[in-house]
Amino acid sequence: MDGVRERVERALASAFSEGEAPLGPPRLADALRYAVFPGGGRVRPCLTLMVARSLGDPDRELSDAAAAAVELIHCASLVHDDLPCFDSATLRRGRPTVHVAFGEATALLTGDALLILAFETLARVRGPGRSRALGMVGVLAGAAGHPRGLVAGQGWEAEPAVSLATYHRAKTASLFGAAAAMGALATGHDPGPFREVGEHLGSAYQLADDLADVIGTTATLGKNVGVDARMCRPTALAGRSREACRSDVESALDAARAAVPDVAGRSDLRRWIGAAGARLLLHTRVEAARETSEEPAARG
Amino acid sequence: MDGVRERVERALASAFSEGEAPLGPPRLADALRYAVFPGGGRVRPCLTLMVARSLGDPDRELSDAAAAAVELIHCASLVHDDLPCFDSATLRRGRPTVHVAFGEATALLTGDALLILAFETLARVRGPGRSRALGMVGVLAGAAGHPRGLVAGQGWEAEPAVSLATYHRAKTASLFGAAAAMGALATGHDPGPFREVGEHLGSAYQLADDLADVIGTTATLGKNVGVDARMCRPTALAGRSREACRSDVESALDAARAAVPDVAGRSDLRRWIGAAGARLLLHTRVEAARETSEEPAARG
Repeated sequence: MDGVRERVERALASAFSEGEAPLGPPRLADALRYAVFPGGGRVRPCLTLMVARSLGDPDRELSDAAAAAVELIHCASLVHDDLPCFDSATLRRGRPTVHVAFGEATALLTGDALLILAFETLARVRGPGRSRALGMVGVLAGAAGHPRGLVAGQGWEAEPAVSLATYHRAKTASLFGAAAAMGALATGHDPGPFREVGEHLGSAYQLADDLADVIGTTATLGKNVGVDARMCRPTALAGRSREACRSDVESALDAARAAVPDVAGRSDLRRWIGAAGARLLLHTRVEAARETSEEPAARG
Repeated sequence: MDGVRERVERALASAFSEGEAPLGPPRLADALRYAVFPGGGRVRPCLTLMVARSLGDPDRELSDAAAAAVELIHCASLVHDDLPCFDSATLRRGRPTVHVAFGEATALLTGDALLILAFETLARVRGPGRSRALGMVGVLAGAAGHPRGLVAGQGWEAEPAVSLATYHRAKTASLFGAAAAMGALATGHDPGPFREVGEHLGSAYQLADDLADVIGTTATLGKNVGVDARMCRPTALAGRSREACRSDVESALDAARAAVPDVAGRSDLRRWIGAAGARLLLHTRVEAARETSEEPAARG
């Protein structure tokens, strides 16, 4: 599993290189880099590459482009989600959010440009995989847009009622599902079973994120917490204990590992999901431990 | 030239039909329709279809998808451009802007969803033209994004200095150029000469828009005026007379017509450009006449 994260960084750097000729507005160029580098966990694009690798990964130009495109959509969504009209978040990955650092107008354009760059990155594929890239554009657009993708997930926040499952599926599981599906498409395989793997993993991440928003701290997470409560968002913690929610994270991770089909690289992919899940669970346990030890002091 | 506008409306309706299953957040679905229907002049997608028709238009599924995609990018840009952090416009096409009607958060998502839908529309092409659709994704992304497209054009507004030519090319001429280029690509022809036609026509529209922002009224234009001055935007009127600017519009229209290559449908395409230009010029003359007759009263 070595080198996957490094490949993601190289693929993202390559997606940016075209746009760095001295032609565009420099402030927007700076904001675009700031929004993408250094990244967070890069879980989605690593999933794309791990799925491709489990199937032999015969066309690395294509799988690299797919991984970069998925991460660009994710970064775009974070920039727009942090804006004052949404979460009004001031901190992301331990630094001021894009609109705090560059202003609202530039942050809005940054999200737009990253969305567009995601699709452009797929359109730039020149090798033998080019014939598969248009299918990826469709899969990625479906996972990003209306009515079932990430933007729809954010749209549900403005509705008076939505089921938690519908909200979580659109807001997070859809892009994780697409990330895994695109890894399979990059090798010419049926994306269906891998999409399911990604969706379960996405559920685990969203559940853990809901938990972190309640039990985490700005210092350890590098981002604002308590957002769901402040914004009255649907959350897995509504009417459920933290322990039950932690157990749901574990179940979703188990489901992701169980869903990996019987392919050559099955055990490596399952091991990678296990390691990603362990980091996720360790984090919720660390937060829980900290919370337990600090609560009396906080009350005092 | 009959029927081109109707084809554009049908192509847009078809692009929307997929997203109208009862699955997405209804408020966002309403905002998406509101942002696109009824439209303005639909000049860009009509240009796409007129170019395709001048070259025989053998694959109408593909040229229709191209036209819809171009217009969706344009509509997305209007929604984001109208937001409070940009032009803070309250009126568009004679109605409240999307953020006034649906709120800022939904307007932000509307622009995002329309950008994504543009690329998804190209990815849905299933017929023989599918092999050309990925090239269109690249052309459209280049015209929409950073460093040379529409978003870059908006980004230039945050820079201390930019040449008017660079600003206008990115903000308007790029998408007009892509609209024409995609019409040629839909027929398998070299897009280069047609891109030039589109860029000249786009220049004419941007110059006329700068003029309208100064001499027009909200009542006749259906949108806010005086925005360039309020926002200190680069404008063709800076240091130039209105008459000189009107003459620049005419020159750009002449250049667009002159650039049409010698193809079977050349005269129809030139005639369509002439008619579009006549409407543009009539408008600036009507505004000029109104201004002349009303100025004394306004001063009184």
